[in-house]
Amino acid sequence: MNTTRRTCLSLAGLASGSLLVKAAEPPADCDLLALFAKRQSVRRYKPDPVPEEHLRRILDAARRAPTSGNQQPWKFLVVRDRVKIDRMKARCIERSTIGGNSLSTTEREARRKTVEERMAGYFSAPVYIVVLTDSESEYPSYNHHDGPMAAGYLMLAARALGYGTVYITDSIPEEITREVLAIPARYQRVCITPLGIPAGWPDPSPKKKLEDLVAYETL
Amino acid sequence: MNTTRRTCLSLAGLASGSLLVKAAEPPADCDLLALFAKRQSVRRYKPDPVPEEHLRRILDAARRAPTSGNQQPWKFLVVRDRVKIDRMKARCIERSTIGGNSLSTTEREARRKTVEERMAGYFSAPVYIVVLTDSESEYPSYNHHDGPMAAGYLMLAARALGYGTVYITDSIPEEITREVLAIPARYQRVCITPLGIPAGWPDPSPKKKLEDLVAYETL
Repeated sequence: MNTTRRTCLSLAGLASGSLLVKAAEPPADCDLLALFAKRQSVRRYKPDPVPEEHLRRILDAARRAPTSGNQQPWKFLVVRDRVKIDRMKARCIERSTIGGNSLSTTEREARRKTVEERMAGYFSAPVYIVVLTDSESEYPSYNHHDGPMAAGYLMLAARALGYGTVYITDSIPEEITREVLAIPARYQRVCITPLGIPAGWPDPSPKKKLEDLVAYETL
Repeated sequence: MNTTRRTCLSLAGLASGSLLVKAAEPPADCDLLALFAKRQSVRRYKPDPVPEEHLRRILDAARRAPTSGNQQPWKFLVVRDRVKIDRMKARCIERSTIGGNSLSTTEREARRKTVEERMAGYFSAPVYIVVLTDSESEYPSYNHHDGPMAAGYLMLAARALGYGTVYITDSIPEEITREVLAIPARYQRVCITPLGIPAGWPDPSPKKKLEDLVAYETL
């Protein structure tokens, strides 16, 4: 058995518990670390609902993120209400097509169509999670570390269960989520993410080489 | 075979490739989502080196974090040089015991011992990773989302391979890492983390109830 498979099996925790009579080369899925590479931003979804049990497991993973002084400053606001989701979409389209007075009618119409297309994708999921941090947490000046970490864990856990997500900031302005969802001022939004089965998994994004991101001893 | 084990095995990727003659109940390690709960902050390490291959896999996972506009604004600065690590420790101890003029000699001595103890733990690892973001990235105003997410993924990937980490901010001041490691001004530090085999896994931190962190439809 080569080292990679042994590592893989021990990661899977089966090395001590089972007898493999015929052991084929484990697929890449066996590698826990492969999950990180599989996670992608998804911008179009199937309408299939997400079972509550999956949602619970995803949020349970999210809140295990590192957190300054164990403060756990998060709120995860789950939205399934189609009226609210459609309202957010309408507000986003409305807002993005304001202005552009220098555009011709044709140009304005083209811009509107582009925005509608993009919003149709973003708002096609069965459920949304608004990741928030509480300004009344124990160490609010550390919320900016804790918030994105929980959101990132949420997205990884979602991928582990076969779901897509995407970390949305400006494309769905915070003010719109605050307005439509009546989010109290004490909570700041980290991001909003759809959660659902992708309409299709996108092609992987081109990535920098690892060696371009790593430095040893000095920069 | 019950559903949990089947899910677990398919997650491990072995369901199609191997014959299990005697299949013991897979341990909790097999559950990808259990990894999130197992990750903990570690503040004391064994000196055993971390193999380059493990380090590479951990960093490869870290840089798969969600990133605004795919900008990948990170630098991961890896430090193994004991001279530098000891210098950072000395500077941290020095800095934390400055002042306190109102303290008696006994009180000052007690404070110094506390700090030395804490720093002995923090600086006991064989290797350190300084997670940085580049102010010359494509979308630098989004670095504050991307930075913590990569750090969080790094820590999860480390745990997957049996290593501990801890997201350190103020306990090792950014200025000290900048000074000792000669980090150019263009890079901002997200955190610094040790990486190594824990001297012992700490008791899990007490956590809020999941239901206290989740809201449905409204806050």
